[in-house]
Amino acid sequence: MAKKKKVSLIGSGNWGTVICKILGNNILCNEHLYEKNLPMFVKKELYNGIDLCDIINEKKMNKKYMPHCFIPDNVMASSDLLEVTDRADILVFVLPHQYVREICETLKGHVKNDAIAISLIKGFDVYGNKLDLISNVIRSQLNIPCSVLMGANLAYEVALEMYSEATIGCKDEEVGILMKKLFQTHYFRIVVVDDELTVELGGALKNIVAMGAGFSDGLNGGHNTKSAVIRLGLMEMMSFSKMFFKDSKMSTYFESSGLGDLVTTCYAGRNHRVAKEFASNPQQTLENLEMNLLNGQKLQGPLTAAEVACVLKLHNVEGRFPMFSTIHKICSGEMPVSSFMDCLKNHPEHL
Amino acid sequence: MAKKKKVSLIGSGNWGTVICKILGNNILCNEHLYEKNLPMFVKKELYNGIDLCDIINEKKMNKKYMPHCFIPDNVMASSDLLEVTDRADILVFVLPHQYVREICETLKGHVKNDAIAISLIKGFDVYGNKLDLISNVIRSQLNIPCSVLMGANLAYEVALEMYSEATIGCKDEEVGILMKKLFQTHYFRIVVVDDELTVELGGALKNIVAMGAGFSDGLNGGHNTKSAVIRLGLMEMMSFSKMFFKDSKMSTYFESSGLGDLVTTCYAGRNHRVAKEFASNPQQTLENLEMNLLNGQKLQGPLTAAEVACVLKLHNVEGRFPMFSTIHKICSGEMPVSSFMDCLKNHPEHL
Repeated sequence: MAKKKKVSLIGSGNWGTVICKILGNNILCNEHLYEKNLPMFVKKELYNGIDLCDIINEKKMNKKYMPHCFIPDNVMASSDLLEVTDRADILVFVLPHQYVREICETLKGHVKNDAIAISLIKGFDVYGNKLDLISNVIRSQLNIPCSVLMGANLAYEVALEMYSEATIGCKDEEVGILMKKLFQTHYFRIVVVDDELTVELGGALKNIVAMGAGFSDGLNGGHNTKSAVIRLGLMEMMSFSKMFFKDSKMSTYFESSGLGDLVTTCYAGRNHRVAKEFASNPQQTLENLEMNLLNGQKLQGPLTAAEVACVLKLHNVEGRFPMFSTIHKICSGEMPVSSFMDCLKNHPEHL
Repeated sequence: MAKKKKVSLIGSGNWGTVICKILGNNILCNEHLYEKNLPMFVKKELYNGIDLCDIINEKKMNKKYMPHCFIPDNVMASSDLLEVTDRADILVFVLPHQYVREICETLKGHVKNDAIAISLIKGFDVYGNKLDLISNVIRSQLNIPCSVLMGANLAYEVALEMYSEATIGCKDEEVGILMKKLFQTHYFRIVVVDDELTVELGGALKNIVAMGAGFSDGLNGGHNTKSAVIRLGLMEMMSFSKMFFKDSKMSTYFESSGLGDLVTTCYAGRNHRVAKEFASNPQQTLENLEMNLLNGQKLQGPLTAAEVACVLKLHNVEGRFPMFSTIHKICSGEMPVSSFMDCLKNHPEHL
């Protein structure tokens, strides 16, 4: 009989908490395949003066980030990263992207040679002037393969077991099957594709477009308008992928990680919400709205837009990405939000 | 100087009225290219006891189908089809699809040899056991080329000049440029592609998926769920296109006529609205809801679902289109609406 695999989870935000529920339960249902306990890394922080890690272990709830999600008994929260990942066969990364390098620095040299990773992190890594995929940081720092899981996954809906889809990008077919078994439930349905690259690009780029969809709604655009924002945004996502990541396959944008996630994010989610408020009340700043509306969560759209705009400028191709560029300029205060509609009306797709 | 072209419009429903506004104005701005008057065929009917045709000509408004849309002075409504289309160079078809054969029968032999047509009609033609494209009926009956225009176009939003996109499918590049000039405005933006076939298929098939999106909302599905319905629906639209229309190109589904129209239709529009109500109150019948909610307009989703289901059955491939088949069975009363969620949970995309 094959040795049972140890799964370790790194992250405990809202999505991390939902994922610990899914993984914890799936591990309990497959005890012949996995070590029963699922250690989870929780960044040291207090909630109402009490260590969040202790709350999770005692109350089996993450009162700070996802209070209504029941955490299975086999999840063991800890703030000691090396204890959590000790002897791990499968490392699941689900944390804000700005912490990835720091986490990998700590893990370096402590990960098994034959371990495998999967990243659920949406965003880019920016190091000096270079923009890269988060999974590439994990791969290069830890020297292990890294799959990705992305999709149309508003965390609170998955927590409520509302039917959702996701995409796993994994080059190794066997690993893909293993990962699918680990994550799929009757309400969380998964497609595996071999194009890791485009799965991750979809998850990273969609938050820029979500800001545009919010602007459109705040400026009283209609359903037709939002649909055009989604489609023109997808065209720019695809152009960006083709231009900077040569192996990216356009057909992968038909997956949940592509248009699925894009549609959900443009109708709901924090980026859309804040952008809509901003466009309705432009005397407010994005920073204030982020603080007042998001309960400590971060807005990813403006950051990703800035990172992408920097790359576009460096390569002198801003004109070929008018929506990305305009969204960045609106977020950074260089242009008024009302100019978003002009950007749509003059989009080169229609010339 | 080239002879001025005569444009004739066949149809006067809600979309036809919006299109007569767009065409009328564009013709006035290009009097060197077109004959000034735009004749419009209005089916003989009364509104509050008065001939609708007379109302349109006198009030410059279509009080029955699109009361807030201003009709330009050069639009000349008439219920005499042959008078409207006499000497026409460009025939614009925008009427309910069930009238197309009858209209073409009347037109046969009265159309100029070098006339060209464009169809804005969403739906299929069913003749005996055979399902065909509406544009093929126009092509074969009138023996002239026929382009198509489809997109994310809720009529009342275009009437309000809210920014919208559309796709023209046209095999002839020169005709495509001409058609784009005729239809494009600052708020109605157009992309021309040569794949007429898939543009039309998108417009015809999306109403089936819209019923599914409505069911999902009525059954309290989340944003993630609807996004999955849209994506799985698109997968079935693409499979259907590949299976029954060999020349169809999948990349055309990235156009407004594909995913653009699909997204809009799954969030707004009559099919979504009635399907949502039906799923929330299954003691109601679809027929009653159609009558009570749609003010005389017709629900296209159930009809298209039935037509497509018939073809799938004939070719013994129902199992490969579980969403299309389930939506048809729900609409026809063979299955309860609650079974829609089971269809999602067991969709073969995730097996």
